Amino acid sequence: MLKKQVYKLFGLLLGLLVTIPVFAAQTEAPLPDTFAEHKVVLQISDGDPFKQTLVLNVAGNLQRYYGAQNVDIEVVAFGPGVRLMLDKNVNEPRIKSLIAGGVRFTACANTLKNFSSKLGHEPKVMEGIAIAPAGAGRILQLNAAGWQILKP
Amino acid sequence: MLKKQVYKLFGLLLGLLVTIPVFAAQTEAPLPDTFAEHKVVLQISDGDPFKQTLVLNVAGNLQRYYGAQNVDIEVVAFGPGVRLMLDKNVNEPRIKSLIAGGVRFTACANTLKNFSSKLGHEPKVMEGIAIAPAGAGRILQLNAAGWQILKP
Amino acid sequence: MLKKQVYKLFGLLLGLLVTIPVFAAQTEAPLPDTFAEHKVVLQISDGDPFKQTLVLNVAGNLQRYYGAQNVDIEVVAFGPGVRLMLDKNVNEPRIKSLIAGGVRFTACANTLKNFSSKLGHEPKVMEGIAIAPAGAGRILQLNAAGWQILKP
Repeated sequence: MLKKQVYKLFGLLLGLLVTIPVFAAQTEAPLPDTFAEHKVVLQISDGDPFKQTLVLNVAGNLQRYYGAQNVDIEVVAFGPGVRLMLDKNVNEPRIKSLIAGGVRFTACANTLKNFSSKLGHEPKVMEGIAIAPAGAGRILQLNAAGWQILKP
Repeated sequence: MLKKQVYKLFGLLLGLLVTIPVFAAQTEAPLPDTFAEHKVVLQISDGDPFKQTLVLNVAGNLQRYYGAQNVDIEVVAFGPGVRLMLDKNVNEPRIKSLIAGGVRFTACANTLKNFSSKLGHEPKVMEGIAIAPAGAGRILQLNAAGWQILKP
Repeated sequence: MLKKQVYKLFGLLLGLLVTIPVFAAQTEAPLPDTFAEHKVVLQISDGDPFKQTLVLNVAGNLQRYYGAQNVDIEVVAFGPGVRLMLDKNVNEPRIKSLIAGGVRFTACANTLKNFSSKLGHEPKVMEGIAIAPAGAGRILQLNAAGWQILKP
């Protein structure tokens, strides 16, 4: 009888050990449905405006290189790179045109929170930009799912 | 009879759908024959002269680390990084010596075309430098063939 | 009889050819024992202090994102990035706290040797920092063992 209770307690403890990591980790953003032959995640973590332009150039070049229907591209920004995706920045027309052409854009929620505490208000990202809990985590998630990482 | 013609037309349309992507995509540069245990593609997409020196240092260090016969290295430049490979730049002697030691160098044709439209003439790359249609595409192509990407 | 000697000589030469690469290559640093689901090597090869802070932010963010027990992180520095790990630099308290939380830090011996020849003395790295013969080689070694490379 006592033995049964010990087993129960043991099971409960084991359950806790197994579930704690699940609670600790943040929810991942969903993986995009993709059937393209090539899958590329472009990383932007630099604030340098030339780098930000280069990332957009590379997105366009890769669509021409593979043919747009053969490549899935997601641009992921974190750290100072998130400025590329803020509302009303100079790259907005190019980004809108790339989104229309099927390129996805994702900004890092951690970075936006950091920006907020410095600015005193939450900065707005452009329309059509997805938010992932952690930009670095998003890049690693896509890479683990077979996406190649390129940091221009 | 009509049914047969419909099938033919359907086959023709299907054929078009399948072949269009092939025409849209650019021709890839050939993959190098390699039997080395380690295969590394070194990316240079920065214009910063210190970064350009660092890439050459890393190429030399990796040859010493693995033994030159055990590692295949290709340095691929795109964007401002292509300056490293232009004719008569300060790194020419080191690059010539690395080429003599088996390191390959590849410059991006897209970038050279961009430079041309700014300069009014096509810039010359050093002797011994290969040209790929898209530098970013070249890096992804080598990576898909088992090469590790390192961006120093 | 002569034939036997020729065979012996041939065997000796073959043995030399096979062993030379082994002597030429440097010894690799040992791979860490790891049972975590996610394994990430964070590269720092920039001297820019903002980049060095960003790498430490990303290490912390990834631990929160996955849960610290679910991710193994090694920060590897080479080139100007090694400054992050030198004794008595401004990031020392954060690095000590990350080390206490299970993050590994590794500096490049090649770079330290370079620094020595410029400074006239070997620079000291912080306590708890490992040394690898080549930082670039360390990153490639971890990557070949299934670690994902991220360069913030």
